[in-house]
Amino acid sequence: MNLEELCQHAHEVRLSVGMLDADVKNKVLEDAADALLEQEAEILAANAQDVENGRANHMPEALVDRLSLDHDRLEAMADGLRQIAGLDDPIGEVMSMKKRPNGLIIGKRRVPLGVIGMIFEARPNVTSDAFGLCFKTGNCVILKGGKDAIYSNIAIVKALKQALQKNGVTEYALNLIEATDRETTERFMKMNQYVDLLIPRGGQGLIQSVVNNATIPVIETGTGNCHIYVDQAADLSMAADIIRNAKTQRIGVCNACESIVVHKAVAKEFLPMLYRALEDKEVELRVDPAAEACLDQNLPLVHPATEEDWGKEYLDYILSVKVVEDIDEAIAHINRYNTSHSDAIITKDYDRAQKFLNEIDSACVYVNASTRFSDGNEFGFGAEIGISTQKLHARGPMGLEALTSYKYIIYGNGQIRK
Amino acid sequence: MNLEELCQHAHEVRLSVGMLDADVKNKVLEDAADALLEQEAEILAANAQDVENGRANHMPEALVDRLSLDHDRLEAMADGLRQIAGLDDPIGEVMSMKKRPNGLIIGKRRVPLGVIGMIFEARPNVTSDAFGLCFKTGNCVILKGGKDAIYSNIAIVKALKQALQKNGVTEYALNLIEATDRETTERFMKMNQYVDLLIPRGGQGLIQSVVNNATIPVIETGTGNCHIYVDQAADLSMAADIIRNAKTQRIGVCNACESIVVHKAVAKEFLPMLYRALEDKEVELRVDPAAEACLDQNLPLVHPATEEDWGKEYLDYILSVKVVEDIDEAIAHINRYNTSHSDAIITKDYDRAQKFLNEIDSACVYVNASTRFSDGNEFGFGAEIGISTQKLHARGPMGLEALTSYKYIIYGNGQIRK
Repeated sequence: MNLEELCQHAHEVRLSVGMLDADVKNKVLEDAADALLEQEAEILAANAQDVENGRANHMPEALVDRLSLDHDRLEAMADGLRQIAGLDDPIGEVMSMKKRPNGLIIGKRRVPLGVIGMIFEARPNVTSDAFGLCFKTGNCVILKGGKDAIYSNIAIVKALKQALQKNGVTEYALNLIEATDRETTERFMKMNQYVDLLIPRGGQGLIQSVVNNATIPVIETGTGNCHIYVDQAADLSMAADIIRNAKTQRIGVCNACESIVVHKAVAKEFLPMLYRALEDKEVELRVDPAAEACLDQNLPLVHPATEEDWGKEYLDYILSVKVVEDIDEAIAHINRYNTSHSDAIITKDYDRAQKFLNEIDSACVYVNASTRFSDGNEFGFGAEIGISTQKLHARGPMGLEALTSYKYIIYGNGQIRK
Repeated sequence: MNLEELCQHAHEVRLSVGMLDADVKNKVLEDAADALLEQEAEILAANAQDVENGRANHMPEALVDRLSLDHDRLEAMADGLRQIAGLDDPIGEVMSMKKRPNGLIIGKRRVPLGVIGMIFEARPNVTSDAFGLCFKTGNCVILKGGKDAIYSNIAIVKALKQALQKNGVTEYALNLIEATDRETTERFMKMNQYVDLLIPRGGQGLIQSVVNNATIPVIETGTGNCHIYVDQAADLSMAADIIRNAKTQRIGVCNACESIVVHKAVAKEFLPMLYRALEDKEVELRVDPAAEACLDQNLPLVHPATEEDWGKEYLDYILSVKVVEDIDEAIAHINRYNTSHSDAIITKDYDRAQKFLNEIDSACVYVNASTRFSDGNEFGFGAEIGISTQKLHARGPMGLEALTSYKYIIYGNGQIRK
């Protein structure tokens, strides 16, 4: 089947998939979890083939690790599907209903988006996650995974499709684009006639390519250059704890802290505390001259920052550190260099806490908490598709509702317009 | 100032515009209404120049009419701004706030989108409407109007900017791209670094060009091939009244009815009624063979339909008419040929009313009412930016809320992630 036919099939069955009852959808998700485990041997064999090819192509070990599946990881994928089955179905909810002066009753009902495309790199777990989230919300999904995980993806999709078949649901609810060439990917991005939303998940290069080339509406799930501002009225020990958590609890995630901004009045006391709090984790500080002056000379983990450091998402044991004159300078600096993902202030001062919440232009703005909480599960959504760094449709952590649209249903009794 | 500088200026001031209090914004809108009327002479002179150029370039009279301003139309534009001033300000509303088990309090606060671009054709009233709606919601706006209305737009923007200046608000809250060449328009569509949303308003060609070329997220406001299905359990006299209203109350609007689908059991009784109901308006019926068989031969306004008729938005005194076997055929036909705008069923049958509401994939689905109600004012939004025919972000009539995003504000007291 060629790409256009595949997209067209998904488009044609979207309405029947969108009308499935929650009971049926949950049963499919439970069966899909079982199928993954029943077909463990085939899936792990396919994955071993991908890993072997990756090693032969000198794939970096960190990527090999992301690509590799084993029994525990497959179990985690199955658990993910079961967890999604347990969530409330958002489809069909009437978000509001009002009677107009002319007697028309106008309701706003939550419906699926239709067909969702996902373009992602070599993480096979995204395949089952994306299916689970899209199917739960009554959407058809078209997956375009990385070339490096193609055997794994084919095996996983085969197992998931058996669950659809077992429950009499069209197999076009789940579609994998098996061609892995660049040209197919670029043609896929322009299938706006059939696909309602495209979500790229991966590095900056992938996301930029999708934003620049897609005619399908895109949700950008982006990088996080997250800042923490230590105000002059901060509880400094709380600030050190929060920064240690936000930087080191998990490296390599988009809600990890990358940049510290400190008010000059507390820099001399705080920066040595911060250094000690991060020392055992060997976190390097890239500091501006004012911050450098607050730290002992010759500390091994302190280096001067360059202009480039302010805008960097390190995803590593590195923090940039800037000292500012006041909160206005802090806010201007953060709004200039952040990626509108998550930023925090540590303070006991009421006015400055409010000012920071009002003036920082990010999806998530915190007072006295770690930026690591920017996550669908931590926000209570029960699941997460990604974290949007754009303002249209969905911003910040995206739960099931981000995969829905609405339609107006209007009950009349003969009204005509005057 | 070049295009990039203009977009950058708007981006830079977006946060200060976004934080203006409603009192200030409303005062600017009232003053802008006054300024339009105070500068009536200049605006009408500039408009006369556009009209003269249009006539010299053989602009069709319908377009000349859309382009032309006079005292009454300027008054209507001013009234539009005053009406927007009177609406509630949606910015700052906390849409939800919950306490998480770890004590974090997570609120979702409505904020402006930032910078909104509008690309539109030769209707000068869009200039003040777009400014009013975007400014009320704390957004900066960049307008790219049609070449044919350039003198009018410059004069209108000049008046509106005086209201900003008078109230000490940055003039970059409102920006007009004065260059009218195609290349500037295409570069503008790719300014996603500075512009958060692009709304094209105009014909299908303009909208397709924006969808295909923009890297800025787009909301498609599209064409309406609206259907009315006359069920076998319809009140036929109600059906005729509603169709007459939906077709003829205003021709040339996207929520006008273009296509009638009739159940075979009532076609013989209903179609002659429909013909008579539309006869004085000289509405031509383009009919399939089954419908033709229900009408007297040689009626002057009946012609056979071709395949092309089913997908057509006539914007004229023409209706396509199809007879179907049952509601399933009706729904399949409508979902195939509609533009997902507005469709209606006329019936007294409960099950089929529900089925139609559930299965038709449109922004607005009606039972026993005219499709002409698909409109922001009729829906009680107080204003309308357009009618979205896409599913992302906003669907159907868009009020002020469609021009907003949200951010999460999180109150903690030292929480770190475990």
